[in-house]
Formats: sequence, C-alpha cells, structure tokens
Amino acid sequence: MKLRCSKGELLEGISTVQKAVTGRTTLPILEGILITCYNDRLTLTATDLDLGIETQVNCEIISKGSVVLNSRLLGDIVRRLPDMDIEIEVDSLYNTTISCGNSKFNIIGQNPDEYPELPVINENILYRIPQDLLKNMIRQTIFAAAQDETRPILTGVLFEVRNSVLTMVALDAYRLALRRANLGNADDITAVIPGKTLGEVGKILAQTDDDIAITFTPNHILFTINNTRVISRLLDGEFMNYRQIIPEEFKTKVKVNTKLLLDSIERASLLAKEGKTNLIKMEIGNDEIIITSNSQLGNVHEQVGIEFEGSDIKIAFNSKYFIDVLKIIDTDEIYLELSSSVSPCILKTEDWESHTYLILPVRLISQ
Amino acid sequence: MKLRCSKGELLEGISTVQKAVTGRTTLPILEGILITCYNDRLTLTATDLDLGIETQVNCEIISKGSVVLNSRLLGDIVRRLPDMDIEIEVDSLYNTTISCGNSKFNIIGQNPDEYPELPVINENILYRIPQDLLKNMIRQTIFAAAQDETRPILTGVLFEVRNSVLTMVALDAYRLALRRANLGNADDITAVIPGKTLGEVGKILAQTDDDIAITFTPNHILFTINNTRVISRLLDGEFMNYRQIIPEEFKTKVKVNTKLLLDSIERASLLAKEGKTNLIKMEIGNDEIIITSNSQLGNVHEQVGIEFEGSDIKIAFNSKYFIDVLKIIDTDEIYLELSSSVSPCILKTEDWESHTYLILPVRLISQ
Repeated sequence: MKLRCSKGELLEGISTVQKAVTGRTTLPILEGILITCYNDRLTLTATDLDLGIETQVNCEIISKGSVVLNSRLLGDIVRRLPDMDIEIEVDSLYNTTISCGNSKFNIIGQNPDEYPELPVINENILYRIPQDLLKNMIRQTIFAAAQDETRPILTGVLFEVRNSVLTMVALDAYRLALRRANLGNADDITAVIPGKTLGEVGKILAQTDDDIAITFTPNHILFTINNTRVISRLLDGEFMNYRQIIPEEFKTKVKVNTKLLLDSIERASLLAKEGKTNLIKMEIGNDEIIITSNSQLGNVHEQVGIEFEGSDIKIAFNSKYFIDVLKIIDTDEIYLELSSSVSPCILKTEDWESHTYLILPVRLISQ
Repeated sequence: MKLRCSKGELLEGISTVQKAVTGRTTLPILEGILITCYNDRLTLTATDLDLGIETQVNCEIISKGSVVLNSRLLGDIVRRLPDMDIEIEVDSLYNTTISCGNSKFNIIGQNPDEYPELPVINENILYRIPQDLLKNMIRQTIFAAAQDETRPILTGVLFEVRNSVLTMVALDAYRLALRRANLGNADDITAVIPGKTLGEVGKILAQTDDDIAITFTPNHILFTINNTRVISRLLDGEFMNYRQIIPEEFKTKVKVNTKLLLDSIERASLLAKEGKTNLIKMEIGNDEIIITSNSQLGNVHEQVGIEFEGSDIKIAFNSKYFIDVLKIIDTDEIYLELSSSVSPCILKTEDWESHTYLILPVRLISQ
C-alpha cells in the first residue's frame, strides 16, 4: 500500500474517526485506526464495537492495501508534521513509513484482517435533517440523559417520529428535555440512540443547513454526513412514556429573561455548592422571583423581575438542573409553568411545541 | 466597615492577591483575604507565610474597619456579580454583606486580628527594572529550577548583581538557564528567590517598560508593582557556583533555526515518549543534524539543516530538556556549542552574554 495526501485532509479524517476510539479496551487492535486503500479511495475506520466511524479522505493512491495503526500515535505524528504532502507506505509485514518534508517515521502496524468489520447497513435513507438543526437538538437534549447505568435505556436519547414530527427526549430521575422538529414527509419510528453516539455525532455536525442522512435497521443507526458514516448500535428496551410525565396543566406561569435568571441562579449556587446540596429556594410572586440559598458560610438573596400569572408559589430545586437547562436555551425569554411546591416545573420557549424541559423540585421538610 | 467600589477593580485586586493563597494550609485563616479600610484606602492582603501579596483598590470608603473573607468564595461571588458598583458592609461580629444590583450576599467573616502580619520592610528601593524585562528573565530561567525538594536551594532562582549587571540563574541536576541584563548603576547583591514567588510575580508583571522596584532585607525581598507589593522570604543557603559548570571552550559550533529544531525534536519525542525514556539521539555533522529516536512502536528520523564549524559529534539527550529551552527562546536562530558526547551542550542566542542554557547529555552504553 502506498498513498500521498495533504496533511490537512488526513488530519481532519483522523480527528473524525478518533472519536470512536475508546480509551479503555480489552481488545488492543481497537486502539488502532484501520486504513484501507482500495478502488482509488482512502478510508479511515475506527470503532469501539458499539460506535463505529468511517470517513473518506482525498488522496493519490499509488498502490492498494490496508493496515491498522495506533490511533493516538498516528494523530500525534500527523498533527506535528509540517503543512506539506504526506506519503504513507506499508510493506507486507505492515511496517509503515510516514514521510513528510525532512521527517520519516517507521511505525509497526497491525494486520487489518484482525480489525472487526462494521455492521453492514443497506443505505435506505429514511430521514434527512439539516445538520445545524440536529446539532442543536442533540445539544438541547443530551445533557438530561442519565449518567449512571442503573437503567441503561435512560443513558440514551429517544428518537421518535410520529406524523412526520421528530421528537427527541432525554430524561433521568430528576429532569427531562424534549425537542421537536417537523421533518416534512417522514415515516414513523421509535428508537433509542446511545448518548455517547449522539455526543460524537454532535461534534462532527457543522453549523450548516446541509442535510445529514439517517438510516435505521432494527438494531443499528447509520448517520451519513458528507464523506463520513457513523454507525451505532441502538439501545434495547422500552423508553419511559414521556407523555405521562409532562403535566399539561399549571397554576402559575412566569415569563423571565433567560440570562438574568441564569446569572442569579449561578450566583445563588455559589453558596449552595459550599453546602454540597446545590439547594436553592425560589419564591415566585407578583413581579419577581426571589432566589435564596444558604450554607454554613452565609446566605444569598437574589431578585429577578418577571411577568407573572396565577398564584404565588414557594419551591426548591437542585440548582444544577436549572443551570443545565438555562445554559442551552438560545432565546432571550423563557416561560416557567408551575403548580405546587411538589410538582414539576416546566420550562418552555416562545416556540411552545418545540422546546420542553421539566425539572423536579426538591421537597423540603419545612414547607 | 463600609465601602463602595467598581466590580472590575475589586475583581482585579482579588485576582492579584489570590496568587498568595495556598490550596493546602493547616491554618484556616490563610484561606482568607484580609480586607482593610483605613486612611481612605482599601487594601487586600493574602499570604501563605512564605509569600505575601498586598494590593490597593480604588474605592469610596464610607466607614473604616477590616475583616477576613474566604478567598475562593469572595472571588467566585465578585466574578459573577453584574458589572456595577459593589457595596461591602461589615458589622462588629464580622458578618459581611455584599450588595450589587439585585444581589445580596451575607457571608460570615473572620476576625482580622487573627490574620498574620506581613513582614515590615523599609522601602529602600535598591533596584528598578522594566517590568517586561524582568517578566522575560523570569520566564527564561524559572523552568530550569529544581522541582523536587532534595536540595531546597535549587528550587529557587539566583538573583546576583555584580558590576551593575544582574544575572539570574536556575539549575537542577540536568540543566541550567542563565539570563543577564545591565541595570545601569546598581549595588552588588546575591540572593536566592523561591521559584514559586518568581512565578507569581511573573504573572503580575505586565508587558510594559514601566519599572518594578525591588528591595531586599537579609531575609526578604519586596517587589513593588504599581499599587501592589509582593513580599517573600528568601531561600537560605549557598547557591551552586554556576560559573564552574558552564564550559567556556567547545569543539563544535552549530547555528540552527529555533523553530525547525523544536518541531523536529517534538516529533522525535513522540516515539521517545512511548518508550518513557524521552531519549533522542543527534548526529551533528556537515550541514545537518540528524535526530533519531526509537521505541517498541517504531522509529523516527528527522533532518534539520544547520551552519556548522568544528568536528562531527554524536550525542543523546532527554528531549524534554531541549524542548523546554527551545520553547522560551524568542530569537529565530540559536547557537549550540558542544565538545563531546559526554560533555554539556550550551545553547546561546546571538546576544551571547545575556542568554546561556546548558543541557547535560544522556550517556549511552554503546557510544
């Protein structure tokens, strides 16, 4: 195998597929990147067996072949080479020479036959979504997915299409994030995508309205983004019925400036953090929210002006969950819907249907 | 005590003195910042008993007094307050109220009488040095100071004035860094300043040619930088006689582009690192340096063009020591002086007198 390609394009390809290389694996070959040169194409592949990424790089192929090279070492070498053409040559024992300018590396490669194959997926494109829309939908849901593995299904994000509307939902024991978008004309589906997969796809997606194509099989999902294919297994099991969790009625409705509320809660949580409880209390009444928090170091009192309908309410939260939501909201104003100090708080944007967040309150003994 | 000041100026003052607050202390009051309002001046003070920093902040003083507030909490609060005037009020029990806009914090302060006093130093200014010059001299020596405490004196940097020339020297068992500057008309002195002190002073110094004033007592040094005073104990003991270490003669002299050499050594060290030895070999001959390194993963061969005088030489180094020096060199070209594979390598800039670096080679069995 022998090829010549530009440093920049090779490095971009390596950075893309490296996202699927896991730090901890019992199968040493998975620390490598599979490099194949066939049919006038250079393909880079990496997988951790759950998630696989494969990308194509423009290059001049001098002779065919393939090899597996250590991912971290290859990335470090290419990153530090001068900005010139790189030549890679592999002999029959997988000894690989990487030459560029006055630099020449000889690296011991591994047999590509030992590298696991990615699942074969027949590319019947089912969905097309603008990249920037999907990137935002991922960012605005994934933070709410469960981090611990007690209920593995909740570490994923629900991908549900009904009546051509895509709903993405993530939730853990304390909160829920829901984003909706109209896909035009699309088939129904329900699948749960691992949070890690969506996180990595989110990094690959660009802020452009060019489409990404998505294909499903019963057990896998395939994202096709330009020259890159991301293949992931889906999570087994039934996702929670999110519709039952989101209350439709409320007694108090508040409109508030997102940034002012975020700043106040972040300040209040400075003291909350000292007490390790993250506990903040809110008194929502006419014209303002009073946010308070205290610990052995002292206490804090924050006021934020609001527009208000309904009855006054006192309620307490883990500040982290509020901060997580307010940080991913892109609109200047946010709406809170509340019913009592022990009922969930719903956060919505002006665009009612497409953004819904839910946070459970902390029940205080002295309420 | 009661005062009003701008958020920006208060935050700058806190950030300056926080550099002296140690993370780990057995004396809890040292986690605090001493805040004093006397004589129409707000002074912030912090110390870890070795190093003390005191700075003055413009403010409107409404009533006199003082208090000690937790450094991290105070910094976090002020950093997150809106960009408006901040009012701080302290009652007789050291309960402190910090108000700004719609935010109000009540913090439990500590008795300022328990805060240790900084050593009193009579400000007989002995030296004046442009800030940017001292900042560079610190950056270009401190990296070579010993990190381990086996010989505590070597964790410091020598500050020596002879015939109005300041020489700063840091060294450990493997290398030495020396910077010289002419101070005009200055008295002789020899002192060893703790590396930590110089590191923090380097951060406070600005890239301006405004002077910093330096005062010595037998046991302490005082830096005066605008409204800030940094007081540190000096290290006890005798510094190594650096003059004896630096060879004056050499057999081989090389002129090489600093960045090309740095890039090549950094690439070569990618493989050296894998072997955990950091070992690189250099073959210096007519017109080029060949740098090689190998480990169980492979080997690398780098060529760098040079100008060359004297005899060919093969020599090996710990790449880290070369990289450390080449990274702080600001000139395009650097000169290497060598005598044999077991003698030190001297690195100098065009400006012979003012920059001298020494690196000991690694002795190889098969040389």
